[in-house]
Amino acid sequence: MIVVMTPSATREDIRRVEERLVELGFKTHTIYGQEKTVIGAIGDKKVLSMEAIITLPGVEKIVPIMKPYKRVGRELKPEKTLVRVGNVTIGGGEVVVIAGPCAVESLDQMLETAKAVKAAGAHILRGGAFKPRTSPYAFQGLEEEGLQYLVEARRVTGLPIVTEAVDPRDVELVAEHADMIQIGARNMQNFRLLKEVGMAGKPVLLKRGLAATVEEWLMAAEYIMDAGNDQIVLCERGIRTYETSTRNTVDLSAVPVVQENSHLPVIVDPSHGTGIWKLVTPMARAAVAVGADGVMVEVHPDPATALCDGPQSLNLENFALLMAEVQKIAAAMAAP
Amino acid sequence: MIVVMTPSATREDIRRVEERLVELGFKTHTIYGQEKTVIGAIGDKKVLSMEAIITLPGVEKIVPIMKPYKRVGRELKPEKTLVRVGNVTIGGGEVVVIAGPCAVESLDQMLETAKAVKAAGAHILRGGAFKPRTSPYAFQGLEEEGLQYLVEARRVTGLPIVTEAVDPRDVELVAEHADMIQIGARNMQNFRLLKEVGMAGKPVLLKRGLAATVEEWLMAAEYIMDAGNDQIVLCERGIRTYETSTRNTVDLSAVPVVQENSHLPVIVDPSHGTGIWKLVTPMARAAVAVGADGVMVEVHPDPATALCDGPQSLNLENFALLMAEVQKIAAAMAAP
Amino acid sequence: MIVVMTPSATREDIRRVEERLVELGFKTHTIYGQEKTVIGAIGDKKVLSMEAIITLPGVEKIVPIMKPYKRVGRELKPEKTLVRVGNVTIGGGEVVVIAGPCAVESLDQMLETAKAVKAAGAHILRGGAFKPRTSPYAFQGLEEEGLQYLVEARRVTGLPIVTEAVDPRDVELVAEHADMIQIGARNMQNFRLLKEVGMAGKPVLLKRGLAATVEEWLMAAEYIMDAGNDQIVLCERGIRTYETSTRNTVDLSAVPVVQENSHLPVIVDPSHGTGIWKLVTPMARAAVAVGADGVMVEVHPDPATALCDGPQSLNLENFALLMAEVQKIAAAMAAP
Amino acid sequence: MIVVMTPSATREDIRRVEERLVELGFKTHTIYGQEKTVIGAIGDKKVLSMEAIITLPGVEKIVPIMKPYKRVGRELKPEKTLVRVGNVTIGGGEVVVIAGPCAVESLDQMLETAKAVKAAGAHILRGGAFKPRTSPYAFQGLEEEGLQYLVEARRVTGLPIVTEAVDPRDVELVAEHADMIQIGARNMQNFRLLKEVGMAGKPVLLKRGLAATVEEWLMAAEYIMDAGNDQIVLCERGIRTYETSTRNTVDLSAVPVVQENSHLPVIVDPSHGTGIWKLVTPMARAAVAVGADGVMVEVHPDPATALCDGPQSLNLENFALLMAEVQKIAAAMAAP
Repeated sequence: MIVVMTPSATREDIRRVEERLVELGFKTHTIYGQEKTVIGAIGDKKVLSMEAIITLPGVEKIVPIMKPYKRVGRELKPEKTLVRVGNVTIGGGEVVVIAGPCAVESLDQMLETAKAVKAAGAHILRGGAFKPRTSPYAFQGLEEEGLQYLVEARRVTGLPIVTEAVDPRDVELVAEHADMIQIGARNMQNFRLLKEVGMAGKPVLLKRGLAATVEEWLMAAEYIMDAGNDQIVLCERGIRTYETSTRNTVDLSAVPVVQENSHLPVIVDPSHGTGIWKLVTPMARAAVAVGADGVMVEVHPDPATALCDGPQSLNLENFALLMAEVQKIAAAMAAP
Repeated sequence: MIVVMTPSATREDIRRVEERLVELGFKTHTIYGQEKTVIGAIGDKKVLSMEAIITLPGVEKIVPIMKPYKRVGRELKPEKTLVRVGNVTIGGGEVVVIAGPCAVESLDQMLETAKAVKAAGAHILRGGAFKPRTSPYAFQGLEEEGLQYLVEARRVTGLPIVTEAVDPRDVELVAEHADMIQIGARNMQNFRLLKEVGMAGKPVLLKRGLAATVEEWLMAAEYIMDAGNDQIVLCERGIRTYETSTRNTVDLSAVPVVQENSHLPVIVDPSHGTGIWKLVTPMARAAVAVGADGVMVEVHPDPATALCDGPQSLNLENFALLMAEVQKIAAAMAAP
Repeated sequence: MIVVMTPSATREDIRRVEERLVELGFKTHTIYGQEKTVIGAIGDKKVLSMEAIITLPGVEKIVPIMKPYKRVGRELKPEKTLVRVGNVTIGGGEVVVIAGPCAVESLDQMLETAKAVKAAGAHILRGGAFKPRTSPYAFQGLEEEGLQYLVEARRVTGLPIVTEAVDPRDVELVAEHADMIQIGARNMQNFRLLKEVGMAGKPVLLKRGLAATVEEWLMAAEYIMDAGNDQIVLCERGIRTYETSTRNTVDLSAVPVVQENSHLPVIVDPSHGTGIWKLVTPMARAAVAVGADGVMVEVHPDPATALCDGPQSLNLENFALLMAEVQKIAAAMAAP
Repeated sequence: MIVVMTPSATREDIRRVEERLVELGFKTHTIYGQEKTVIGAIGDKKVLSMEAIITLPGVEKIVPIMKPYKRVGRELKPEKTLVRVGNVTIGGGEVVVIAGPCAVESLDQMLETAKAVKAAGAHILRGGAFKPRTSPYAFQGLEEEGLQYLVEARRVTGLPIVTEAVDPRDVELVAEHADMIQIGARNMQNFRLLKEVGMAGKPVLLKRGLAATVEEWLMAAEYIMDAGNDQIVLCERGIRTYETSTRNTVDLSAVPVVQENSHLPVIVDPSHGTGIWKLVTPMARAAVAVGADGVMVEVHPDPATALCDGPQSLNLENFALLMAEVQKIAAAMAAP
């Protein structure tokens, strides 16, 4: 940690900061510049709220030097983590495609979608049984019944399934049925839920929060790893910006930023990222080209009647076209 | 709902949209403009995902006409809701001040703070026993022990207490001890938690999410009201923007926007809103001047040693100065 | 235009709005819903400030139906515009690469860079002679001398040159030397400069403003077209968001959004978009995969000594690697 | 400047950074921490693009220590600057109110407005003769004719006048007529225009850019001071955020942030800041309560027919009510 003093800080101010740092277990190292003094504090990273030293007289700002995450960082574990979801490996070089409807609506809808996305080449089936909805009057999901339809769709197609948990009390139930548990954007900082999925023994798909920084997102993953689970896939799904021509703004540069800083795989969800089905295929291509480990796409047999996120869902034909496009880019990326 | 067709939409496209709307229970009313056709859809507001009609050929955009909230809106209940927290009323014209530390750290800290803020004129005591922290390595709160210290501080000072719940499983415990349950910014769209506090029989302090729109914030309150609880106070606590000179950007115009659209009281938290203790008093004055029903402020006997949010906490003397400033503006606002 | 009335609007309020609309040359068409009345206004799109009708009693909101741009829109001109810069065509299907230093620093630097980027396969040479800098103490460019170095680099390599104009008084001078005039992000709404380059007889590279919506960006292009110049290339260069791990957030979905709404070519600048040289190549690949008509990249023989934007500049070897990657993706995109 | 090295940086990497810093005229001071090495660089602040050192191997990040502005900062000039506009002083303790229409439309409109705002207690008259408009088809202002109407309104009422310049070529003309020259939000980084008004011999009203940080805003003021003019008033006018219930989000905390860091006066424009006339008076009260040196408000005799910004303009009666409210808060602020 670096403490920058104001130009008008007195010797006494500097001395008091040094003393407090020593009390807190740091060794200090003071640099007297022409206009400002800077105090380097070396030592124990576990001290919790060091930023409070900024309230001492003469302190202008605090600059942290260490990254706040440990377990998810590349510094301690340089090699990439492979996440195994059923018989599928994410992070191993192959571009993994997760597809399915926003919400599980019926057994027929799930089976029709699952067969079609399997035929088109998808690797994992998605579908929401517990739906976090902005409105209490919107469809909230079929809950346990939805989980059973997912299980049936897996039985028929062999595709592993991923579905969201929204309440710590449901994690056990979801873990019993699903091959991977999704944590949605709105729950990225639901820390109790993160701890619960950290102990559930299933891989986790952790979506980036609506307006989360990459660092906060990695800290959310740190909660899960700290609870004992390193089988985590990060999912960029667009961030909130002032632009209104899309539902969110997909931050594709977050993919290489995550890869530089973390060993965890990272995929992209262009459906939520854009909110507009026509943009899903171009952004899926771009996600593969930027180096993502996979993409997640919403697919519905009849988007115009979908109970959730119809505007951003591909129909079955358009999903097949997306797969062809994605494979073309993936092949180019894999070429020497 | 208004459906705007593209300039190149055909008669057949228009007919198909009209038919779908009729199937969904709407009456349609089509206006043929010089370049574009617009279809008004009148009827059942409960249809869930009407926006999916945008996937039909020839549709350019959908414009909702009705507000998505009902119970929290002014249209059905024009008169202001009074929220009673212990012997304090929020929304009744008096500016209510809630003060206390970010986190409950010890009985001594709570008692010293409680006595000081009471002496300075605060109305309600705050303090976090369950802390949602970005890092798993940061202090997570004293939990039930913290609740007991709050209860003791209430016994000594007579101030009602507000504290946060972060897990649906803890709501009952918090409700037993506290006079008001806080829902933090990171949990504003933790819908299960919202439903739980909607049934807990205690008033709720609902903070605006980190990057929530006013409409999403009101929809979160709608979840609580829909579960049976109308004793809700909204709390503006700054939104996430690109500006880095403050922790968040306080959106004071949200106060009159909420008051125009909802009957619920709304207060402002300038501590989280700015993240910098020197800005808390000027922003508290501004909050009162814009017409807020109260302010919530973080106060700590020794901010430089606080386990949480020290940089934004006032010490006891500065809180007394804030109270004097706030009262000056409140008196001016009350003058004819 | 659609005028939405409040639920409490009276017959008299509605009548007054209808009258005002008729006075302003509109035909009105009123739909009486169950709770709200909606008035469709059909007619003259040239009326300037129709939104002012919102100040009339009983009006809740105004919904524009027509797009505010005409000349740059696809509705009147569906086929793509080809922009010719020297012997290079942008928008014709081939991915065009523009490369060169942020600032022209010396003749040697320009010649070394120009030869290297030409050898690697770049199509157009960039370099700033007039630099808009946040600080008055930063290097402001070599101005006319810089233009001459660019001209010499073109003579030696045959590459057409693009350089920025920052003042209406310099447009003529820049137009005499350059093959294409760049309008920088900070000047996207410098309307006098837009009008001047609209009349300068050279193609224009129009960067998106720091926090401009796609619509505002297209409106800036509309100024240029309205002044008589349709040779415009749009350049996405990242937008301002709360995320700090990159300098800006590249909004790649803006590329297909622009292509849906406008006939103008659109390219991407991953150098300014990310601000970090390591991210430039992955984002250049993604830009090609999303369907951009080209990319613009900053290249410097020795980034660590660059007078401007060193952190985001590629050195000559890394630029050659970028070209190979970009060509791989471009080939995949062109495959059937 | 502090250079933070990565954990894997070698001795050789560190040595190379130290050498480069010494070459650039810095003295270095290296701190070897447990995991990372940090190099303090002391010396010449004028070196331009030091951040380029980040491209050297083993460098993780660069932390600037010095503020980038000098002349506008409090560090060199602690006492507040008084700005004199005709017979009015801004920054001297009295809350100054600037009022008038968005655009000068006619002599009658200007005279009626000027007399009314003077009668209500305004101190300075505003009105746009050169209008920067998003659309080339919107009213662009009466230009020189508009300046003459402003001069006539000043003659009749005695109010000094402020009006915008949008082109370096017009600055001399505007300076001849106006008492203060406004630089609009879209031109905050039109550096040539800033230099021109820095030499024009008239006070300058510098609006914050649409998405400018406080630091960039102060750097824009630095351009004007560097050109020889210290008579600058900063104007907060709302920043761009994701929230859509208002046109912009007024960042009132920017007022005390500016006052902490700069000696220049700062006022608030709640009309552009909110875009909604009903919010103007509450936000004007809040601006005064936060400590602003003044407010600027749009006033029009008949907002529903205004050629520009009608939705956010107060009519004459509502402006008189605003003045009473503002004076109430100003009196409370001035009370001991």
